[in-house]
Amino acid sequence: MPDASTTLTDLREIVRRFVEERDWRQFHSPKNLSMSLAIEAAELMEHFQWIDAAESRRIGDDPIKLGEVRDEIADVLCYLLALANELDLDLSTAICDKMVKNAAKYPAELSRGRYAPPPGD
Amino acid sequence: MPDASTTLTDLREIVRRFVEERDWRQFHSPKNLSMSLAIEAAELMEHFQWIDAAESRRIGDDPIKLGEVRDEIADVLCYLLALANELDLDLSTAICDKMVKNAAKYPAELSRGRYAPPPGD
Amino acid sequence: MPDASTTLTDLREIVRRFVEERDWRQFHSPKNLSMSLAIEAAELMEHFQWIDAAESRRIGDDPIKLGEVRDEIADVLCYLLALANELDLDLSTAICDKMVKNAAKYPAELSRGRYAPPPGD
Amino acid sequence: MPDASTTLTDLREIVRRFVEERDWRQFHSPKNLSMSLAIEAAELMEHFQWIDAAESRRIGDDPIKLGEVRDEIADVLCYLLALANELDLDLSTAICDKMVKNAAKYPAELSRGRYAPPPGD
Repeated sequence: MPDASTTLTDLREIVRRFVEERDWRQFHSPKNLSMSLAIEAAELMEHFQWIDAAESRRIGDDPIKLGEVRDEIADVLCYLLALANELDLDLSTAICDKMVKNAAKYPAELSRGRYAPPPGD
Repeated sequence: MPDASTTLTDLREIVRRFVEERDWRQFHSPKNLSMSLAIEAAELMEHFQWIDAAESRRIGDDPIKLGEVRDEIADVLCYLLALANELDLDLSTAICDKMVKNAAKYPAELSRGRYAPPPGD
Repeated sequence: MPDASTTLTDLREIVRRFVEERDWRQFHSPKNLSMSLAIEAAELMEHFQWIDAAESRRIGDDPIKLGEVRDEIADVLCYLLALANELDLDLSTAICDKMVKNAAKYPAELSRGRYAPPPGD
Repeated sequence: MPDASTTLTDLREIVRRFVEERDWRQFHSPKNLSMSLAIEAAELMEHFQWIDAAESRRIGDDPIKLGEVRDEIADVLCYLLALANELDLDLSTAICDKMVKNAAKYPAELSRGRYAPPPGD
């Protein structure tokens, strides 16, 4: 089931089943899940801690390291899906709504090649 | 486009276009994106910092707070999708592969109601 | 050398020597050290992830867990001292200056028992 | 009171008084403080997010940016001191004990210029 044919709901259901089979919803308060997300994000960051940006772009050259990074990314996504399940939030519409705000804050023509809101914003 | 009918590729394309229209791939090294992810995860966590687990489960009662949390969740997901784009990783198969490992580490019958690998693991 | 008789400079020198003996300043850019700090803070947080606030106050009852938490706290402090060394910042005056700002933002009489700036701020 | 003449206890007392004057110990469970620490570390990291390691070494050239970074570092340290206060941990001996472990894990002669435990470790 590749990304091209997998819906967000498909992935959410995989996580939901895993959590329910273990009776883990009792631990999955949004507070705790937000901590889990930050912890997994830090574990992902650890793989890039002592290398520079250019080296980090070549991490795919090393299949073992890429596999580790892939597992950490999956962990972050799992907790994000678990959090969306607990809060009953639709992720796709959340992203679309946020992208509208982002586009207003960073107009394409004024933001080309600069990672900051335009002057005067 | 709700989660039930939106594929991971659909969302990845939204992020990819946003980044390309602004010529931001130059900033999007995996190292930098892993930092962004951790920063956004911390901003999400901030909403739950001083409340307890039970209160955090009721955050949906306050539409304004829920909206803020929803925006932070969208930010985390956007950076995660941007990172998957840079590393050319399929998220759906990454999750499925990781879930197989998780199921081996936390067998359902031995992990019911306990959030730790079974004794002797 | 307990806290009562150890100066910040004493601890900074311990870290400085450790780093110099290993020729590690080349890795210690402020960017990298800020990542290290966030990573170690997440490792500390991991010890409190699935327990509630009340349980976390009793962590000292378990000498093994307290020892692990103590090591993580030491790691965070080491990187903070390394960062102060690289940026040549005096931590004591930085804290005092920040505390003046904090006291203005959270006046004692208006902030008793509430963890937010007073209304209208 | 510069670092050369300020003890860890001096700084801990500043934080302790600030917290007590506001009756904030009720919020300062180790769980919550570990979240605060991670949140402040992320805010610090934000200043280095889109610049490279070399630029981050020159942050001191910009007094305004350096002042912002200095405030974030102070925030991290404040929460670390608050956590040490809650757990009644001596930071100086914690650092010294951890440094003995670090020196065993990263022997100076085998770790010169490499940021990883020696092979076979």
